[in-house]
Amino acid sequence: MTRLFNAPAAFADEALEGFVAAHRRWVRPVSGGVVRSAPAPRGQVAVVIGGGSGHYPAFSGLVGPGLAHGAAVGNVFASPSARQIRTVAEQAHAGGGVLLMFGNYAGDVLHFGQAAEQLNAAGIETRCVSVTDDISSADRADQDKRRGIAGDLPVFKAAAAAAEQGRDLDGVEAAARHANARTRSFGIAFSGCTLPGADHPLFTVDEGRMAVGLGIHGEPGIGEREVPSADGAAELLVSALLAELPEGVTDPRGERAAVILNGLGTVKYEELFVVYRRVAQLLAEAGIEVVDPEVGELVTSFDMAGVSLTLCWLDEELEPLWTAGADTPAYRKGEVTAPAAGSAQEIRTDAPDATVPAATEASRTAAATAVAALRAVKDTVDTHAEELGRIDAVAGDGDHGIGMRRGSEAAHAAAVRAAEAGAGAGTAVGAAADAWADRAGGTSGALWGVLLHAVGAALGDTEAPTAGTVADGVSEASAAVRRLGGAEVGDKTMVDVLVPFADTLAGAVADGAPLTAAWDRAATAAEDAAKSTAGLVPRIGRARPHAERSLGTPDAGAHSLALIVRAVHGVLATH
Amino acid sequence: MTRLFNAPAAFADEALEGFVAAHRRWVRPVSGGVVRSAPAPRGQVAVVIGGGSGHYPAFSGLVGPGLAHGAAVGNVFASPSARQIRTVAEQAHAGGGVLLMFGNYAGDVLHFGQAAEQLNAAGIETRCVSVTDDISSADRADQDKRRGIAGDLPVFKAAAAAAEQGRDLDGVEAAARHANARTRSFGIAFSGCTLPGADHPLFTVDEGRMAVGLGIHGEPGIGEREVPSADGAAELLVSALLAELPEGVTDPRGERAAVILNGLGTVKYEELFVVYRRVAQLLAEAGIEVVDPEVGELVTSFDMAGVSLTLCWLDEELEPLWTAGADTPAYRKGEVTAPAAGSAQEIRTDAPDATVPAATEASRTAAATAVAALRAVKDTVDTHAEELGRIDAVAGDGDHGIGMRRGSEAAHAAAVRAAEAGAGAGTAVGAAADAWADRAGGTSGALWGVLLHAVGAALGDTEAPTAGTVADGVSEASAAVRRLGGAEVGDKTMVDVLVPFADTLAGAVADGAPLTAAWDRAATAAEDAAKSTAGLVPRIGRARPHAERSLGTPDAGAHSLALIVRAVHGVLATH
Repeated sequence: MTRLFNAPAAFADEALEGFVAAHRRWVRPVSGGVVRSAPAPRGQVAVVIGGGSGHYPAFSGLVGPGLAHGAAVGNVFASPSARQIRTVAEQAHAGGGVLLMFGNYAGDVLHFGQAAEQLNAAGIETRCVSVTDDISSADRADQDKRRGIAGDLPVFKAAAAAAEQGRDLDGVEAAARHANARTRSFGIAFSGCTLPGADHPLFTVDEGRMAVGLGIHGEPGIGEREVPSADGAAELLVSALLAELPEGVTDPRGERAAVILNGLGTVKYEELFVVYRRVAQLLAEAGIEVVDPEVGELVTSFDMAGVSLTLCWLDEELEPLWTAGADTPAYRKGEVTAPAAGSAQEIRTDAPDATVPAATEASRTAAATAVAALRAVKDTVDTHAEELGRIDAVAGDGDHGIGMRRGSEAAHAAAVRAAEAGAGAGTAVGAAADAWADRAGGTSGALWGVLLHAVGAALGDTEAPTAGTVADGVSEASAAVRRLGGAEVGDKTMVDVLVPFADTLAGAVADGAPLTAAWDRAATAAEDAAKSTAGLVPRIGRARPHAERSLGTPDAGAHSLALIVRAVHGVLATH
Repeated sequence: MTRLFNAPAAFADEALEGFVAAHRRWVRPVSGGVVRSAPAPRGQVAVVIGGGSGHYPAFSGLVGPGLAHGAAVGNVFASPSARQIRTVAEQAHAGGGVLLMFGNYAGDVLHFGQAAEQLNAAGIETRCVSVTDDISSADRADQDKRRGIAGDLPVFKAAAAAAEQGRDLDGVEAAARHANARTRSFGIAFSGCTLPGADHPLFTVDEGRMAVGLGIHGEPGIGEREVPSADGAAELLVSALLAELPEGVTDPRGERAAVILNGLGTVKYEELFVVYRRVAQLLAEAGIEVVDPEVGELVTSFDMAGVSLTLCWLDEELEPLWTAGADTPAYRKGEVTAPAAGSAQEIRTDAPDATVPAATEASRTAAATAVAALRAVKDTVDTHAEELGRIDAVAGDGDHGIGMRRGSEAAHAAAVRAAEAGAGAGTAVGAAADAWADRAGGTSGALWGVLLHAVGAALGDTEAPTAGTVADGVSEASAAVRRLGGAEVGDKTMVDVLVPFADTLAGAVADGAPLTAAWDRAATAAEDAAKSTAGLVPRIGRARPHAERSLGTPDAGAHSLALIVRAVHGVLATH
């Protein structure tokens, strides 16, 4: 378990601070994460990686020549916000465009996607590639829904080495996609991890048993069996990977592969070596030539006791990218140009608030209503936080209530500050959106950031919002959440509630209903829809750690959205 | 706990095999351990490190240019045998002599000391330096009794970098001693480690409590207190180290130091970073400039949850040695000449048995008696193994019975093989000595190897042994154990039994008693002496993990020696 921390809420920030203090030769801190201490050559594509904290050396430990140009670092097991990713990417950008890379998790997909949209809008050409190496997380037919685990390393490295070779953004993106298509991982776990300040692990496995098909966020795997011998574990891992050869490989014999035997946290190096001994024998028997194997902790999950095996099937393009030199805090290999000594200058500060744009009196009045609505949202979430956590725990990690509380409080506070500074409704709601995504972390934080951003953009700072403006904003929010979240109606997620809510609202407003009445009708539709998300359903989006949930509770995100729109109705009715 | 293994007894060997398979670029396997894959320049002093398994990356992970030339790798938490150390040193030797380096533990001191004697006798100039950085293991007045923990790294590195600079053996030894004198560590632990196949940890600490002054073999520390915050832990570690400045440093202000925050096994990197954040602040406040800090797992203790802080106070000599480049499986820094790719050739084999030297019929008859005696030793140890373990657990790690059983079985088997091949008594007992030390591990294994070697040398392969020969051999054994073990009568160790046994035997033989009668009298003296080792006593030798033992049981090593000499008496009486 995690024992050494101060305030649990400060853990991720303090860990990053200590990491930077120990590694100034490689990295310098920027708002939202770290970038290389010595800038890349002008015109080189910048590879910016990232994800939640708790996976060290992913992601900050992999920044340096030959690997990432920067890493956006989120809270514990929570995606960095779009703002964080944007800031890190801006600092890492050397004029050649940016490739954002991350494991395929809903929250990361959302935040990195949003950041890419914003960076492109700001004139920095940006692409996204998510890593999908974990074969246990979805069938082969759904490869793009698989999550990313230790395969992050060879895929990140292929892209970074391609950038180092001087390829343009198209070329770097192509290298990343090619490496991802040829990278597969499979894992086992003996115990879940315990987060800082928690008094029990995210999941448990009985002594002597193990989970097969682990995730790196304490997801408990897809099956359970007895702990085998080290040789038995090696056989299980190798046979799982040899059962799914990548496209273009029909016979493993004669193939060459990068091999990573990754410790998740508390499997010791000696144990990894005992397992690797047999892995190497089995791969040799299968006729596979191992190239530059790595045995150690590369993508971890706090103190989880588990191990995963990754094969990246090399070809003429990928092998030189894998064997190229790299020099980062946690991963060094071959020869690279030594980075200049890092500057001791601390430049990690929260970006100063932009000056509040001019707003009309009408929009400032609307901002007051928005603040009141956000207050109601915060209060409702607060009242229901435990219930939301309980619902989420059925199939998720049980932190929905915590995340929503953190996000809604931050959103309300940001809107209050903006309104006090004279902001219009658009700016106030936009500030709330940024704050929610920044502080809540996770998928729901990202979705609420996207949602509020769309609403804020529709409200603007000039006009008094009409029922039509609000309905348009909500429709745009619904579209944006679907676009970035990758979920559709029927996936049994908050989209199942958001779409009927937006459509009912738009329909009622089109029928001439005043805002409050229209909202009431839409909120009722939302409540009905939330109930229908109960049952055996997949989790949201492109990456779903569990194939199914098993109890008749509604989706937590769907349920909280229904509660929130009802609470906002109360505010509209009295303003 | 350790979960991934095959046969627990094969764990260390299999881990080494897997380690080598993954790191052929750096190391090649030799009998007893590993050496660099690319040989050092002719005439360079070879730095050979070593110790038990379970401390990865110590010791095999620290072999490569800029660090060790070879590592002798013992069983789990057991010193490599003198034979292993000798073989590794012979392979690593490049004509410039050998510096053997190891943490200051009784078993290591014995085996490395014996190996050094043998290497010097064979014409390879060899010195020993043991690392004594752990300030909690003995008072400042007894600095040379302190054990070695994570301070191993800067001390090994200083010696290796000095060798790389082309210094001669005197110069390299001096650099090592100078670095050791300026290196201090202090640690804390939250849980003990569980060895492969064991069902409980070597020690436990109640949840929420921690042990202060940990050891790296599951030694439970010198005190206990509540687990502090990460900042509190940093303050404890820093203040302990600043309370004992090395000679020549009166004020830390303005000093420069290498700093290592070492994870013992299951403290995660993120936790280490949170602690390091405060360590860096405190050292800055004390006016100390940190040079190339290391935060990570460098000298571990299986899955022990603990952390130690090491300061190596740099000066003009030590700083360039610390900042020099190194390229090993687990520790890489700066620029070094890239090692040539490792050869795929496996050369790890047990050294072939030397041809049996010619022996007289009389000596072959004596060999049969020796085999019978060793059979009786084995049976006695087997009968009493659990009792010996129980006695040892009072103050030691409880493995005395296991080690004695392993050693005595191997010794008997080796003597049988030698006798069947026509060996005389000297060769048969010498083979038993090597086998005991090789297989038993630990202090007792080393001592029994030394003891039997001395007896075998006195018996020879020519003459029929007389009572005088036997008494001389036992006296020589007594002297050798004292010389290499660093213990004297009164230290409450097996020496307290061995000396009166040898002296009584010699006296009775000088008085004209026949061997069996003299042995009987000596065995009685041994039994009396064993009882008197009970009470509050220090453990054997130069390094004692615990200041005192607290119960009235005899020393396990003393007790087993008394049992064994009595069993041998039975054989003598019937042969």
